[in-house]
Order: sequence, then structure tokens, then C-alpha cells
Amino acid sequence: MAERDLVAMLGSWRGLVDAALDRWLPPQTDSPPKVHEAMRYSVFAGGKRLRPILALSACEAAGGPLEDALPAAVALELIHTYSLIHDDLPAMDDDDFRRGRPTCHKVYGEAMAILAGDGLLTHAFQVLSNGAGSAMPAARRLQIVREIAEAAGSLGMVGGQAMDILAEGQRLEPETLLALHRCKTGALIRAAIRVGGIAAGAGAEAMGCLTRYAEKVGLAFQIVDDILDIEGSTEEMGKTAGSDLRKQKATYPSVFGMATAKRDAETFLGEAKAALGPLGDKGWVLAALADYVGSRRS
Amino acid sequence: MAERDLVAMLGSWRGLVDAALDRWLPPQTDSPPKVHEAMRYSVFAGGKRLRPILALSACEAAGGPLEDALPAAVALELIHTYSLIHDDLPAMDDDDFRRGRPTCHKVYGEAMAILAGDGLLTHAFQVLSNGAGSAMPAARRLQIVREIAEAAGSLGMVGGQAMDILAEGQRLEPETLLALHRCKTGALIRAAIRVGGIAAGAGAEAMGCLTRYAEKVGLAFQIVDDILDIEGSTEEMGKTAGSDLRKQKATYPSVFGMATAKRDAETFLGEAKAALGPLGDKGWVLAALADYVGSRRS
Repeated sequence: MAERDLVAMLGSWRGLVDAALDRWLPPQTDSPPKVHEAMRYSVFAGGKRLRPILALSACEAAGGPLEDALPAAVALELIHTYSLIHDDLPAMDDDDFRRGRPTCHKVYGEAMAILAGDGLLTHAFQVLSNGAGSAMPAARRLQIVREIAEAAGSLGMVGGQAMDILAEGQRLEPETLLALHRCKTGALIRAAIRVGGIAAGAGAEAMGCLTRYAEKVGLAFQIVDDILDIEGSTEEMGKTAGSDLRKQKATYPSVFGMATAKRDAETFLGEAKAALGPLGDKGWVLAALADYVGSRRS
Repeated sequence: MAERDLVAMLGSWRGLVDAALDRWLPPQTDSPPKVHEAMRYSVFAGGKRLRPILALSACEAAGGPLEDALPAAVALELIHTYSLIHDDLPAMDDDDFRRGRPTCHKVYGEAMAILAGDGLLTHAFQVLSNGAGSAMPAARRLQIVREIAEAAGSLGMVGGQAMDILAEGQRLEPETLLALHRCKTGALIRAAIRVGGIAAGAGAEAMGCLTRYAEKVGLAFQIVDDILDIEGSTEEMGKTAGSDLRKQKATYPSVFGMATAKRDAETFLGEAKAALGPLGDKGWVLAALADYVGSRRS
């Protein structure tokens, strides 16, 4: 498939995810409107929908119908969005802009931002359990709930954000930084890819391939993020470049050096693509996404 | 059964819930320890475990084994605790004390308190999906996930807290206050009782009884809470009495008058007990709990 076709396909998947987000979120007019407005403000702020697309791609790579992965895809984006809202709060990273727009608490106030985040996180589990795409067996749906809850919780994403806050201004050992990245961004990306496989009813071998791919891609994604924070322009990023540096956050380039960071990102992406081997041609979208992670500029 | 025996039984159920909370929460030493410490600090702060006990009582009333309702009981307490942590934050109700101890953010800081709350909420769904008490069919477990997610989300508890924040300093219409109470405290109490029934595999008639009981008890519970905030002593409450008044919060007594509040609480508790009729003798613990709600002093 030509690159043009890939771009078109990802665009149509994004449309699928956006339509499902709109359909499955409470309407803006539901009481209390303010909190639903805040939830939708942040969900529809122009995100790349990377996690949903990874889930759909993994489902397809494992031979499942896309719609079986759609509730998981939506839940992942709701959880990703809640984590951004809470991370941006004054008590946390204190960011005023996100994707070029004022952050949730700048528009709706801190209380509504905290509650919008809480609402999105809770709604993710409502979407996973409410019977949409209900042809899937309950046991498989429950396994997806578990996979996502483990990845998003205090031993995963929430724990990673806590490590990040606690580490501000400190020199980190390489292993500590890797553990932080594995939790903060790695865990949910890994879960996104695995739940795609679970939705498709993938067997042990395919799940093994997907998991190895996921761990390498997640790591590379974070390294590229860290590199872009230093080398990207504020305009391209939609948030203030250099913010990690300003907040004295330990990053992959600051711990390992920029040259090593760039080389390692390439290596991990190569390993990610190699892990897809046993899936054959069906893994092509995931392989293309690895290339996208390596080439992104924002 | 004599009152003495009821007290002993509730004590043993509380012990069961506390042991399960301890067993199913990540150990305090898990990385990052600070966030796990904060989670446990608030979970083991001397709560009454009302929601877990309602879930266990409803399960027993519907003829199920207690252990089938234990994951739901634990999940409910984790969610209740997270909601208290977030409600106490400076951006929300700004409370320094809870159950006679400094609130989570006073001890661990705002960032860790936000994350501890996020971690507890997420962990509730991990507990519901991780296979503990796994004799229960997956479909029933998924139904419990859905029931709790709906009750705790932006159309339930989170929405109620948002209404409460937005209503501060305003005069509320009676219907608005009732909607606020139905969401803020009613929804999770209703879910607690319903998931006990679902865990027991209750049929439609029993679920109808439990739901009617739940809605009346939830309303009475909130009215009594509002009354105690005015008439209770700070010592008995473990938090500062009169705080609703100070924050200009609309309460049942402020909207309906104290005499009506007391009469309505009695009426609703009577209706709650009457709803249990078709369950026969098996409903006795739920009936006793209604009496407890009416007589509590803290």
C-alpha cells in the first residue's frame, strides 16, 4: 500500500474513533453541563488518537474485526485525555497550553478540571462494560477492563506520573528513568496494543509478538517525545518547547546524551518492527506506525 | 437476633472488608511508595465501610455467598475514598481534616493526593476484573463494572460533586437539591446495594426491592448527614461541624427546614424498610442498617 493510502486509512480510522467518542460521551447538555463541556473540550482538542489507532491496528493485525476493538479504543483515549487534564493542573506540571489551546483548568477552573478528569476515567470503564460491540464474549471484555485498569493505575501510568513529579530537579539513574518511562507512557501504549489483540481473540504467539512490539514502540515514542521537546519548535508542538528543561525534568537525552537518544530510538523501532515478523503481512499497519513514530515532528 | 449480635456481625464484616482492602491494594513499598502510602493512608483512616456493608448485606438478602460480593465491596470503598480525597482538595471543598486526621493533601501534598485518588479509582476496576472470587460468571462481573462506573461517573457521583461546587453560595430549588443529593451520595449507595444483588444473581423482583430500598436509604443518609453537620459536635463528627453552613452549601434543612428534614428522614427510612417486604426474613440486616442510618451520630 502506498503511503498516501496509509494516510487516508489512518484518517478514516481517526474519524471512526472520533465518531464513537462523540456517540459514547454524555451529551454536553447533560446535567451538570459544565463538567460535560469540560470533558468534551479536552477530548476534542485535536489529539492524534495514537492509542486508539494502535488498538485498532493490533486488532486488525490479529485478524479481528475493527468494531470489536472500538470500545477499547475509545476507553484508551478517554484515559489518555484525563491523564493530560490532571497532569496539566497547577499542583502537577502547571501547564497553560496543550495542543495550542488553553488547558482545561485555564478554561473551566481547577475544580471542574479535576472532576472532568475523574469523569473521563470513570466513563472509560462504562464504555468497556456497557455492551457496545456486544458480540464479544464477556470474559474477553473483562480481560480488556483488567488490562487497561492495570496499565492506567498506580503501578502503571498514575505511578509514572507520581515518579515524574517526585523526580523533578533530581538527577536520575538510567534505570530509574527507564522505569519512569515504562510506567508513565509505556504502560498505556502497551495496553493499547495488547487489548487490540485480546479483542481479536489472538492466541499466545500473536500476543507475544504484539507485546514485544508494544514495549519497543512505547519506549521509542517517549524518547522521540523527549527529543522533540528539545529540538521541536513551539509552533510545531502546540505546547511550549523546552518545557522539560525548564522544569528540570530528567529526559532520555539529558540522561543518555542526544546522540545515544537518537540512535536508541532507531534501534527500538527496528526491534519493534522485527517483532512483528510472525504476523506476516497482517502486521503492515503496525510497522508503518513504527515508522511514523520515528518521523513525527510534533 | 439481638442488637448485640448485629453489632458483632457488622464488626466481623468490617474486618472481612478491611482484610480484603489490605490484600488487594498494592503494598506500601511498591514503586512509587509515596503514592501507595497516600492511597493506604486514606483507605485506612477509620471509615465506617457503609457502602461495602450495604453490598454484603444486599448479597446476603438475595441469598448469595458473601465472598461473591467482596470484590464489589472493596471497589466501592476505594471509589468512596478517592472521592473524599479529591473533594477535600483546596480547589474543591478545601478541607484540612477528615475523620479527625489531616486530609491526604495536607500530609502528602496536592499532587500526590490527586494521583492517590486517581490510583484508587483505577484500582477499583482492577479489583472488579482481576478474577478474585472468580467462580462468578464473567457476564455478572461485567454487569457490576457497568453498574459501578455509571454510578460513580459524571452522570452520578462526579456530576453530583460538580453540581455541589457550582451551587456554592446559591439558593437551590428543592428539586435541584434532590437531584444533587441523588447524584452526589445517592448514586453510589444505590449501586452498592444493587451490585450486592447482582453478585448474588438476584432476579428481577428482588432487584426491584433492593433498588427501592436503596433509593430511600440513600436519600435518608444524606438528610441525616446534613442534620448532623448542623447539630453534631465537631468531636463526634471527626470533622468540623457547621462546615456546610460556613461554605454556604445548600442542605436539606436549609432548603426544607429542620423539622421537615427530620420528619422526611424518618419517612424515607420507613419506606426503605417497607420495600424489603417481599424478601422476607432475609432482609433483616438491611432493615437494621436503615435503623442505624436513622440513629447515627457521626
